[in-house]
Amino acid sequence: MAQVSIPDSEVDIVIGAVQSDLASFMEEWRPIFSRYHLIIVKDPDLKDELKVPGGFNVNVYTKSDIDRVVGSSSTTVLFSGYSCRYFGYLMSRKKYIISVDDDCFPARDNKGDIIDIVAQHVSNLTTPATPFFFNTLYDPYRKGADFVRGYPFSLRHGVSCALSCGLWLNLADYDAPTQALKPGHRNSRYVDAVLTVPARTMMPVSGINIGFDRELVGPALFPAMRLAAEGKLRWETVEDIWCGMCVKVVCDHMGIGVKSGLPYVWREERGDAVESLKKEWEGVKLMEEVVPFFHSLRLSKAAVSAEECVVEMAVAVEERLGPVDPVFARAADAMVNWIKLWKVAGTRSAVA
Amino acid sequence: MAQVSIPDSEVDIVIGAVQSDLASFMEEWRPIFSRYHLIIVKDPDLKDELKVPGGFNVNVYTKSDIDRVVGSSSTTVLFSGYSCRYFGYLMSRKKYIISVDDDCFPARDNKGDIIDIVAQHVSNLTTPATPFFFNTLYDPYRKGADFVRGYPFSLRHGVSCALSCGLWLNLADYDAPTQALKPGHRNSRYVDAVLTVPARTMMPVSGINIGFDRELVGPALFPAMRLAAEGKLRWETVEDIWCGMCVKVVCDHMGIGVKSGLPYVWREERGDAVESLKKEWEGVKLMEEVVPFFHSLRLSKAAVSAEECVVEMAVAVEERLGPVDPVFARAADAMVNWIKLWKVAGTRSAVA
Repeated sequence: MAQVSIPDSEVDIVIGAVQSDLASFMEEWRPIFSRYHLIIVKDPDLKDELKVPGGFNVNVYTKSDIDRVVGSSSTTVLFSGYSCRYFGYLMSRKKYIISVDDDCFPARDNKGDIIDIVAQHVSNLTTPATPFFFNTLYDPYRKGADFVRGYPFSLRHGVSCALSCGLWLNLADYDAPTQALKPGHRNSRYVDAVLTVPARTMMPVSGINIGFDRELVGPALFPAMRLAAEGKLRWETVEDIWCGMCVKVVCDHMGIGVKSGLPYVWREERGDAVESLKKEWEGVKLMEEVVPFFHSLRLSKAAVSAEECVVEMAVAVEERLGPVDPVFARAADAMVNWIKLWKVAGTRSAVA
Repeated sequence: MAQVSIPDSEVDIVIGAVQSDLASFMEEWRPIFSRYHLIIVKDPDLKDELKVPGGFNVNVYTKSDIDRVVGSSSTTVLFSGYSCRYFGYLMSRKKYIISVDDDCFPARDNKGDIIDIVAQHVSNLTTPATPFFFNTLYDPYRKGADFVRGYPFSLRHGVSCALSCGLWLNLADYDAPTQALKPGHRNSRYVDAVLTVPARTMMPVSGINIGFDRELVGPALFPAMRLAAEGKLRWETVEDIWCGMCVKVVCDHMGIGVKSGLPYVWREERGDAVESLKKEWEGVKLMEEVVPFFHSLRLSKAAVSAEECVVEMAVAVEERLGPVDPVFARAADAMVNWIKLWKVAGTRSAVA
């Protein structure tokens, strides 16, 4: 596990609250989260008062905070539902952000030990990534592992890791059609591995359980893709899948890495997959356009920061996907507005 | 595990014997190997008589068979040391080949059960591969797994899998420098996963424990890269790494897949890493040229079969790597000669 140690003060844990009673969620996570600063963002559509237990170092943001910061400057960047967490990304001033859905609980590893998702995400983010050549023994920096025979020595120093994508035990992150077809399907396989997703390989990033380096790629994690019939269940959203593709393209362009695998969280059931099917098909259909687009997208050498990459991507989205469906033009607009918000938020922090 | 069942008669197990006494090796594998046809090829440099226990359906090939088949037609395709196994690939008439080094024994999974490497390799080869988009829950066709949210439905049928690369417990397949630096280093992590190595991602294929579809990619598995100081220990060879790169380029070009992960074998110690260091550095240095070459190699649309791909690759090796080191020109020559041998072997079988 983590050989590199970083101060706890460099980490923000960001929770988007799409349910009002966070008591059991917070109590389950207390042994792991209590050392860190937490940012909780209440879904602006949520009417009931938020229940957050005491004893945490926490900032809670609600609709009034969002309105104050975002104001009327953006009508396309929307922070409702799961997208409320992105407001927390905007407010954070830490180097690392760990974010987990509020229907997830600590899982146990193969030995029965509680998994510290913060330690594992930080370990993934602070050890190098190896996107340019595949190591068959997975993460070569992990204790007990190494680079296998044939791995070029010139690539063994690796590159910075910007994004760590964790997984899920019990209810995995399937789409509504898959879950509806296999209602009893649960993921029970704990795969004890972390790997770098190779450069130029596209992947479906889930927002359920992630960690990222905010300074490196924060500007590329945004709520841009909002389905017309987006719902309050994971399988009724693709906002994270979209921004995951954007981050992957940014990382590939900037020569930095994305890892996938550990840590796992235990994910509880929520919602009715069959009821969600009607909404979900929109997202499913859009992926057929989205994946080839991002797969073929190449950014110019002029784009050297995540901000510049996102602005350039937004132009390509508008031009190439805009004519396909109005949802894409709105996404492009939201991406541009997000970068404006990000810059303003950064300036505000520098002054404060 | 394997949902698809194929007749045992479609599988050849090919063993290259670099040690003369195969008794303990064969006895350990008997429960798994006894159902299948075996091809054992004796390293032509080996003087002692081969000891093979009874009770197996086996063809043994020795130097005299190699001389008879290969004759004087090829002076560049050499079958000594670990490369003797490739003569078995040439002689096989089966659809699938499973090949394992003679210092490997059956391993046990996390539950303590003996791993059936044939069943697992066959399962990997007979279920589709997904090289065009990464599935975060690994092999989606495995029992208990599926495609995650965001995975395009149009890519869920997958493509044929041509190569299955297994892993190693105890002594992993490190190079001599790594093993010499960490003499006590042993791999004890059993990662319960199979994944498709994404298209256009280069990888170090180890020949220690593999399965492949001979009809699809057999012509691309050959002993072409022979180090000037090649030895009788794995870390003194790169022949498998080289042909692994070739197979991967062929698979990417043909739109078929390569998987890595399960099954594991238990690998026993052999040799002295420090003693091997002098020889190994040659291989290590060559990788710095080899990897960028294969990474940038694109084949023409005219190459539609594995044979044609190999011949085209040989031309590129000759042109682009030939001037760097004479070992590459010899490899290119061996690749062309291998294809000639493969065609002759195929004709002979059709007549016989």
